[in-house]
Amino acid sequence: MNNAAKVVCGLALAGMATTTPLAQEMRPDRAVKYRQGVMYAMNANLGVLSRMVKGEIPFNKDSAVRSARFSAELSEMPWDGFVPVSHEGGKTKAKADIWKDKAQFDKLAQAMQAEMPKLVAAAQTGDVAQLKSALGPVAKSCDNCHDKFTNE
Amino acid sequence: MNNAAKVVCGLALAGMATTTPLAQEMRPDRAVKYRQGVMYAMNANLGVLSRMVKGEIPFNKDSAVRSARFSAELSEMPWDGFVPVSHEGGKTKAKADIWKDKAQFDKLAQAMQAEMPKLVAAAQTGDVAQLKSALGPVAKSCDNCHDKFTNE
Repeated sequence: MNNAAKVVCGLALAGMATTTPLAQEMRPDRAVKYRQGVMYAMNANLGVLSRMVKGEIPFNKDSAVRSARFSAELSEMPWDGFVPVSHEGGKTKAKADIWKDKAQFDKLAQAMQAEMPKLVAAAQTGDVAQLKSALGPVAKSCDNCHDKFTNE
Repeated sequence: MNNAAKVVCGLALAGMATTTPLAQEMRPDRAVKYRQGVMYAMNANLGVLSRMVKGEIPFNKDSAVRSARFSAELSEMPWDGFVPVSHEGGKTKAKADIWKDKAQFDKLAQAMQAEMPKLVAAAQTGDVAQLKSALGPVAKSCDNCHDKFTNE
């Protein structure tokens, strides 16, 4: 191994040290399936809340709290699946730009997660207007990242 | 509609009233994707814990607690995806037997969820031996349901 290769390996290992054991388990196919599975479930729960605030299905406090809580819990999870090899992992809308500007990606991911406790609190009030007010910023926080980092 | 059909519809509607809005949103293709996504993520997290207790990857308390917590959270979620139409929803290993003995399926699902707080508590001790002791019953509780209700 030449010196340049050693530096690259050293940097790669330094990067690995900051990732989670879960992320380190992610082979490309697993990474894409993992994050898509979590995102799909989060989207399904947010979709129920969206339909409630639009009046398309009846508002139900217990169910709203449950789907808000599930969304909040799921919002913590997909990130282990965003590993640099994952563009090799099958069909994905994720742009390779994620790896060119991971700091921005992480910032947008964290901004989305920061909206979630407000969503849960709004659902807990049992007031559909408050739920609607909290759901807007959640949806915006999703779009902020998807607009920049996915091919949709 | 004849009287027999009315009775069947009435029973079907009575059944619907006990399901969640999330479950009611589940078209067959969504139901299978939803539950498989959640199960995949749960399996990935349990897989990390399994590899830690086997010594295949280093034990790390924070990561163990995180994956145990994610598993516990995810363990509550797949059930909305088990709706009676879901055998039409694409590739699934789930047997139609689930709908013939839903009470038994639900009982096994609840038994699995009941193991999860013990798994989180064990991870929080930071003692890999305690984690191993808690992970065994979790795996057994998964197998109890998969052996009976999946084609594997």
